Amino acid sequence: MPSKISVSIIGATGYTGLELLRFLTLHPHVGLKHLVSHNHAGQKLSALFPHLQGVCDKALTDLPSEQVAKKSDLIFLALPHGESQALVPKWLGKTKIIDLAGDFRTHDARLFQKYYGKEHAFPQGLSQFVYGFSEGKKEEIKKANAVANPGCFAITAELALFPLKQWIKNVSVVAVTGSSGSGKIPKESAHHPIRSHNMQSYKIGTHQHLPEVMQTLGLQESQIVWVPTRGPFTRGIHLTAFVELAKPFKEREVLARFQKNYAGSPFVRLKAGVELAAVVGSNFGDIAIHQAGDKFIIQAVIDNLVKGAAGNAIQNMNLMMGFDETAGLLINPLYP
Amino acid sequence: MPSKISVSIIGATGYTGLELLRFLTLHPHVGLKHLVSHNHAGQKLSALFPHLQGVCDKALTDLPSEQVAKKSDLIFLALPHGESQALVPKWLGKTKIIDLAGDFRTHDARLFQKYYGKEHAFPQGLSQFVYGFSEGKKEEIKKANAVANPGCFAITAELALFPLKQWIKNVSVVAVTGSSGSGKIPKESAHHPIRSHNMQSYKIGTHQHLPEVMQTLGLQESQIVWVPTRGPFTRGIHLTAFVELAKPFKEREVLARFQKNYAGSPFVRLKAGVELAAVVGSNFGDIAIHQAGDKFIIQAVIDNLVKGAAGNAIQNMNLMMGFDETAGLLINPLYP
Amino acid sequence: MPSKISVSIIGATGYTGLELLRFLTLHPHVGLKHLVSHNHAGQKLSALFPHLQGVCDKALTDLPSEQVAKKSDLIFLALPHGESQALVPKWLGKTKIIDLAGDFRTHDARLFQKYYGKEHAFPQGLSQFVYGFSEGKKEEIKKANAVANPGCFAITAELALFPLKQWIKNVSVVAVTGSSGSGKIPKESAHHPIRSHNMQSYKIGTHQHLPEVMQTLGLQESQIVWVPTRGPFTRGIHLTAFVELAKPFKEREVLARFQKNYAGSPFVRLKAGVELAAVVGSNFGDIAIHQAGDKFIIQAVIDNLVKGAAGNAIQNMNLMMGFDETAGLLINPLYP
Amino acid sequence: MPSKISVSIIGATGYTGLELLRFLTLHPHVGLKHLVSHNHAGQKLSALFPHLQGVCDKALTDLPSEQVAKKSDLIFLALPHGESQALVPKWLGKTKIIDLAGDFRTHDARLFQKYYGKEHAFPQGLSQFVYGFSEGKKEEIKKANAVANPGCFAITAELALFPLKQWIKNVSVVAVTGSSGSGKIPKESAHHPIRSHNMQSYKIGTHQHLPEVMQTLGLQESQIVWVPTRGPFTRGIHLTAFVELAKPFKEREVLARFQKNYAGSPFVRLKAGVELAAVVGSNFGDIAIHQAGDKFIIQAVIDNLVKGAAGNAIQNMNLMMGFDETAGLLINPLYP
Repeated sequence: MPSKISVSIIGATGYTGLELLRFLTLHPHVGLKHLVSHNHAGQKLSALFPHLQGVCDKALTDLPSEQVAKKSDLIFLALPHGESQALVPKWLGKTKIIDLAGDFRTHDARLFQKYYGKEHAFPQGLSQFVYGFSEGKKEEIKKANAVANPGCFAITAELALFPLKQWIKNVSVVAVTGSSGSGKIPKESAHHPIRSHNMQSYKIGTHQHLPEVMQTLGLQESQIVWVPTRGPFTRGIHLTAFVELAKPFKEREVLARFQKNYAGSPFVRLKAGVELAAVVGSNFGDIAIHQAGDKFIIQAVIDNLVKGAAGNAIQNMNLMMGFDETAGLLINPLYP
Repeated sequence: MPSKISVSIIGATGYTGLELLRFLTLHPHVGLKHLVSHNHAGQKLSALFPHLQGVCDKALTDLPSEQVAKKSDLIFLALPHGESQALVPKWLGKTKIIDLAGDFRTHDARLFQKYYGKEHAFPQGLSQFVYGFSEGKKEEIKKANAVANPGCFAITAELALFPLKQWIKNVSVVAVTGSSGSGKIPKESAHHPIRSHNMQSYKIGTHQHLPEVMQTLGLQESQIVWVPTRGPFTRGIHLTAFVELAKPFKEREVLARFQKNYAGSPFVRLKAGVELAAVVGSNFGDIAIHQAGDKFIIQAVIDNLVKGAAGNAIQNMNLMMGFDETAGLLINPLYP
Repeated sequence: MPSKISVSIIGATGYTGLELLRFLTLHPHVGLKHLVSHNHAGQKLSALFPHLQGVCDKALTDLPSEQVAKKSDLIFLALPHGESQALVPKWLGKTKIIDLAGDFRTHDARLFQKYYGKEHAFPQGLSQFVYGFSEGKKEEIKKANAVANPGCFAITAELALFPLKQWIKNVSVVAVTGSSGSGKIPKESAHHPIRSHNMQSYKIGTHQHLPEVMQTLGLQESQIVWVPTRGPFTRGIHLTAFVELAKPFKEREVLARFQKNYAGSPFVRLKAGVELAAVVGSNFGDIAIHQAGDKFIIQAVIDNLVKGAAGNAIQNMNLMMGFDETAGLLINPLYP
Repeated sequence: MPSKISVSIIGATGYTGLELLRFLTLHPHVGLKHLVSHNHAGQKLSALFPHLQGVCDKALTDLPSEQVAKKSDLIFLALPHGESQALVPKWLGKTKIIDLAGDFRTHDARLFQKYYGKEHAFPQGLSQFVYGFSEGKKEEIKKANAVANPGCFAITAELALFPLKQWIKNVSVVAVTGSSGSGKIPKESAHHPIRSHNMQSYKIGTHQHLPEVMQTLGLQESQIVWVPTRGPFTRGIHLTAFVELAKPFKEREVLARFQKNYAGSPFVRLKAGVELAAVVGSNFGDIAIHQAGDKFIIQAVIDNLVKGAAGNAIQNMNLMMGFDETAGLLINPLYP
């Protein structure tokens, strides 16, 4: 392992790419090699993004994939869903890859087609990716050459439910997300005049993060009801799950399972109650458990761009490269 | 019925009192008589509240209750929970009363004590109040002399679930409220630096609106799980209920029940999907229904200060006085 | 004058059109005739805008201009800047017109070209429009057949400075606007993830509202410095002007001028201090005056969609049609 | 110089104290010694502040001042204005001090009394403090034992105007601040239901940051007009200054002065235009210059809790201790 590895980002100008840069420019073991953007090749990142002046003045490039691969120890793909399928075959096996889109999260091409609405272009690649739920797949990730980083809603649900995996009879979920989750391109659902004071659910029961949650938790479609909801804030996901378990547990037993499960997880915090503001800007995932009769209410909060995207991806990079799991990620929540 | 009735407000300087004024100053059949406030007696409302200059320049008073009663055809009590118990006996039977606090919503003094944390001071008064869920108790309200206006969370749940009343096996609810619900007095949970981007649940399973919901829907405590949650916006409640029914219904059957139930309800709108921004500032309650396997997801949105407080109270006044149900309430949503 | 006049709106689906509808659907002397939208002809407004269900279920139309004119006593044009130039010749003289865009505000075609960046298509029409600053041009508006409704920034400045018109030596202005001012089409400057917590000035010294302000106040370009700024809220403009006067006035003299000037203006409120939240949703313009050495600090706040657009346009309609100036506009501020 | 210095914070539970912790817990040359809070002595910080769990689990203490001094190489005082006057004499000369309150910023006790409304309790201490405008007093700060860290409004104005110091004839300023500037204790001006969509100026011409600005820029009261304004966001200050200079400068000459002045200032960024969102969470101060006739419009933005408080204080600590000026401060803006 060199003192610094060479890392490239494909799709550096989206919110996920920018968030990778927020952390990677300060990562002790990373040197940024290529920042690829076809739309903005030749421009300086700091000319496009006013916050990056003095932080990252590197120019964007549209170098051919081969050259990017040759010069990079690891590549982050931060592209819109569906685009990495075409690119991944060029790199797989030549360099380490972490894909932040949805293309390789489920191992079942039929589920991909059902939830993403198109046939998968590289189904034989699905089995070559390890699903990057760092808290649940640590040993596999350490050995992986290709990791599919979880969706933001998905990882929140997985953090909230993974320790109960074997006993979930059914679960109903409301998860409220900040507007940064809808990306950098202006769109109606993130138009400030309304979004600033709106709440609205969407894709009820059909959201594309469902298959990866089902896969991680071993659930059938009939066992999970999912209500993704847009909230009037920029960063974060606040998730509430109502869980029925296959066995009568006491609250302290459930809590003990969580404590044991997450004992070695530096970014998971178990709490009496969670609040979104406590994790903004950081890689923490906070979890709280309440018993309510024969159900359990489990709540989890994360920053959707950090633990829900870039931060978790860097955590996976750290695991893949043998770095300390927290390297470059020890940035505290922004409070208030 | 006189061309204009005399109406007084006890507690005119809280958010609920101010919201009553927003509508009552323009109500075609209402003349404002006394605005009572012990803390600010003698001051002009417009000196305390900059938005009221030119809208309502009346002075506040601390006239004795008897005089207020004698001059008023109807009195709104917009006081903190627990205060109207002491005042109500002075007025009951002498003038019509609409209480916007929680004191007389449940008919069971033990439930009051359990959820409000103190013994009820006037338990014999409980049976003299009609619960003011306008869409469910219209005929009783028309004949009532005293009405207990529902809590903001409660009426949202009742709108969402009342047409299914006989068939609810169990229900789990997440309801997210705006900061105006916490009142005009600054407090930590409504402190802008955090509230502006926070979501946080509170009083899970113990919220004081539970007993009135249980009473209206005929539910036992074991049948309802309730997660009240604070959201980062000023006005509104966005509620999601996961319902299990005692009988296998089809979605169109459930929808038909709602259509029939709310056919004569001018402020209820059934929709394919709800969004909070569509009701802000207005007395509308919007409802949407989704089937999800053997559960139903029912969502409802209201403005917590209007349909959740002052607007619904005026709707009840209209019913009690024989006015058109919508008189003075035809103010459109503020969009955007 | 008929008991109700027939009013049509060209461009009913923008924020200005929607805001006209918020007021006009409740206006005592107005019947809505045609709502014209070429993009959405045939659709019901309530299908496009969830808040309008039960408020205005009328269908949009793309009827030929002649037919719209024939059936309408008055037409509001609520189109993007530059589009009404082509339409106005069809209606001028046939029906009363209020144009809410910038096309006919200045009487100088060269200034139009300079600030709007294109040649005016109907320069001979400029002199046929009365500039609709209701508080400054009341008598002219009463007699007008065509009114050019002021820009939102412009009317705020005019309210703040008109009583000092003869004595302004120079003035520097910072005006902060809500995101609704940028319209209904999503755009980068109104993208929620950033706009929610951003402030950013734009078009410093070149904003298209400058020529109408100069015209109304009799100022040269060298006398006014203007810093339009975007703020992180939905509705309103908060304006601060630093004024140097040609004559040494005392604060009470200036205040007296304002009091006298606005004595007959039902929507202007003079205050010791202004705050944006006091006018949101209403047609009020609040003004406060502070002396600071040899300068005066004058602040004004309005709701940009009401006094800054639709409300003021309806006020002008009331004046043109001989209605009470406040008819249909007595909707109180939404507070909080 | 030890590998790590011992640093204590007096008043660790306010927003400024918390922000010091956000940076100091990750500072390479700092060990946290004592966190003093009389109200919360004995409690763990992470029990009071949910975001600090796993970040700083240290307990608060109310150790006597002498002991705190003896164990600390440097003490940050993050107390409400007026409280450090009584404490400073105990430490002055015994350990290095950085006071983040207003007590020792001006060297003129009469100005303190005028703007803070009370007599200074330790006027002889005023001359012993160096004013901590890092970009303007670097050499003095390096040698200082006691530094008075600037006010948030003040340092924004100083960044915007310092390079023009000798030529300012007069200046008018509008500065808009986020709600975190009002501190952690809930108060009416930071109550979310209104603050969320309000703008309101306050203390026009009397704000307590004026004397330090005048002192730094060499201005008389008659030369500066100042309009502090509250904005509806959590973090940041957006300042606009209209400056008249004593000499006719060209824009490029002014720009050149800024470039030269700030050449060695790692946290100052000169830009074509500034926006608040580009600095949030970071220690950057961004500045833009526009000429407008015979005036200059200079805008500056900072994060009020970072460059306006804790970040700048740590920058001063770095200078005082001989560390790299940016040590521990290289945290990127949070964008979006």
